[in-house]
Formats: sequence, C-alpha cells, structure tokens
Amino acid sequence: MGDYLHEHPATPRTYEEKQAVSNRLKRIEGQVRGIQKMIEQDRYCIDILVQINAINAALKKVGFSVAERHMKHCVSNAVQTGEGNEAIDELMQVMKQFSK
Amino acid sequence: MGDYLHEHPATPRTYEEKQAVSNRLKRIEGQVRGIQKMIEQDRYCIDILVQINAINAALKKVGFSVAERHMKHCVSNAVQTGEGNEAIDELMQVMKQFSK
Amino acid sequence: MGDYLHEHPATPRTYEEKQAVSNRLKRIEGQVRGIQKMIEQDRYCIDILVQINAINAALKKVGFSVAERHMKHCVSNAVQTGEGNEAIDELMQVMKQFSK
Amino acid sequence: MGDYLHEHPATPRTYEEKQAVSNRLKRIEGQVRGIQKMIEQDRYCIDILVQINAINAALKKVGFSVAERHMKHCVSNAVQTGEGNEAIDELMQVMKQFSK
Repeated sequence: MGDYLHEHPATPRTYEEKQAVSNRLKRIEGQVRGIQKMIEQDRYCIDILVQINAINAALKKVGFSVAERHMKHCVSNAVQTGEGNEAIDELMQVMKQFSK
Repeated sequence: MGDYLHEHPATPRTYEEKQAVSNRLKRIEGQVRGIQKMIEQDRYCIDILVQINAINAALKKVGFSVAERHMKHCVSNAVQTGEGNEAIDELMQVMKQFSK
Repeated sequence: MGDYLHEHPATPRTYEEKQAVSNRLKRIEGQVRGIQKMIEQDRYCIDILVQINAINAALKKVGFSVAERHMKHCVSNAVQTGEGNEAIDELMQVMKQFSK
Repeated sequence: MGDYLHEHPATPRTYEEKQAVSNRLKRIEGQVRGIQKMIEQDRYCIDILVQINAINAALKKVGFSVAERHMKHCVSNAVQTGEGNEAIDELMQVMKQFSK
C-alpha cells in the first residue's frame, strides 16, 4: 500500500497456510451472517452479545497467527538484514491497536 | 435459547433499529471477505493486521450499541419488575468476556 | 467531581464493602512495587510482562465489581426515578474505555 | 525464574532505562493509592472506574515499552543466534494475555 514497509511477506504464504487462514475467515463470515439472522429474528440481546464475543475471539486468533508468522518471517528477516528496529516499530504500532 | 433470561428483548427492535444493525453487520461481513482476498493476494501481514483491528473495532461498536439498548430496555424493565439484579448479573457476565 | 451525575453512590458503601475493595487495591499496590523491584534487579522482560498482565487482570476485576455494584444501586435507582437513560449513557461511556 | 528462556534481558537495562520505567511505576502506584482514598471517601463509582481505566492504560504503556525493548534486544539477539522462533513463541504467549 506504500504505507507499510512491504507489500508482501518476506516468505510467501504457502497454499496450505492460505487455506488455513481462509477457512477460519469463512467461518467468521458465517458467524457474522448468523448475527444478522439473529437481529432479523429479534433475538435476545445477550444471545447476540455472546456471538459477538465469539467472533472477536476468533478474529483475535487469526490476528495472533498472522502476527506470529510475521515475526518468524518478516521481522526475523529484517533483523538479519539490519532493519529489525523499523520492522519492530511497525509491528508494535499495530499491536497497540490490537490490544484494544 | 433457554440458557438466558429471555428469548427476545423486552421491547421488540423496530424496523429501523434492525436495519441500522444489519447495515453495520453487512459492512463487517464485507470487511471479512476483504481480508480473505488479501490473504489470496499474499498481502503484507501488517496490512492484514490493520484490517483485523478495524473489524474488531467495528464489532465492538455493534456490541456496545446492543448492550446499551439492552440496558435501556431489558435491564431497565427488569429493574422495574424487581428482577434487576438477575438481569445485571447476566449482562456483567457477558461484558467480562467483551472486554477481552 | 461535578463532571459526573453524582458525587457518591446511591447507596453508601458499607464498611465491609470498602474493606473488600481496599484489600484488593493494597494487593495491587504491592504487585506494582514488585515490578519496580524486578526492574531494579534487571529481570527478564517476559517475567515483567507476566506480572503486568496479572495486575491488569486484578484491576479489571476491581473495575467489574465497582461497575456491578454501580448498576445494582446507582443505575437501578436512577431507572426507578425516571433517570435511567442518563445513568446508562454515563456508564456505557466509561465501559467503552474499560474494554480497551 | 527458570520458567522462561532467560533470567535477564540480552542487553542489561541502563540506569536511565530503569529510571524511566521506575518513574512510571511510581506514578501508577500513586494512582492505585488514589483509588483507595476514593473508596474511603465513598466516591461515585464512575469517578473510580475512570481512574481504573487510567491505570490500565498507563500499565499497558509500560507493558508495550517493555515488549518493544524485549523485541529490539532479546528477540533480535535470539534471531541472530538461531533461536528466534523460541523467543517469538514465548513473547506471543504473553502478548495474548496482554490483549485481554
């Protein structure tokens, strides 16, 4: 995007890695549609909040797996080529948002 | 679902209320699909994490609006019929998860 | 302090309630001092982060118990005197911060 | 403590670094004592919740600065000696707690 240090990860994601993330995201998409249905059916607020919590937790898991892979590939790579601190600053910035 | 105090909110959601939540959820669904595309295109991890943060923030907003309406209708109603504490306990339980 | 709807809770905290919160806060204060010692001893970062997590969790517990009591007394009281929505708006505002 | 990869950071904290963290922690300790006083004075719940939020935010800031230094020294060092993944796993574990 021009805004970040790179446009692609240092090591391309394998087909299996893409599938794993993609499957999780499809499940999350289904959960979001599930809430839409609950709203249409005028379901009890607490039921809906529980589902929202579940999606947030699932999204955080995806986020942590993306962050972990990022550290093991992109950040580690940057450290070895002497650009570790820039990569770490970039990651910390987004992790601060993440913990909100 | 039998697990919670009620199956529907104390005051039914109006058509406009349903539309407002539904529109937000459709946008979130689109954002989740957007991340799937980013994964397929092997986009940079930080880009993806920023999008995940955006979805989490959007979901929390929906959650807070559901929680606020719940307090103004269901919990307030329960308080007036002498069942406030049960409704408050139920809400606190889910809010604790929410803050994670 | 003039910024909020009240200066005191609708029902004064009992001696026992004050003691219970105070004991938790004293423990938290001790934990914060514990981290200061760990810094002086130049202890490993992960050890320190684990302690910081523990304090955050302990503080959130205090926060939720204060919020719960607030709902069961102040907000419930406000609902019964027709000022529920103002009290709920005030609480939601602070809960949004809390979930960060 | 034997539980973690190391007992000290890869690069010892300087006097200035220790002072900077220590000053923040002293301020946080003072804020915790401030809440104790508010409880004694039976202050309004919302006032207290706002203070708890402030402490949580301050503690997170300390946490992020510890985590950032950890990545720039300990993790970077581990990457260069071929033990990066272990250090990253250890950090991710604690960051997952942190985001709660």
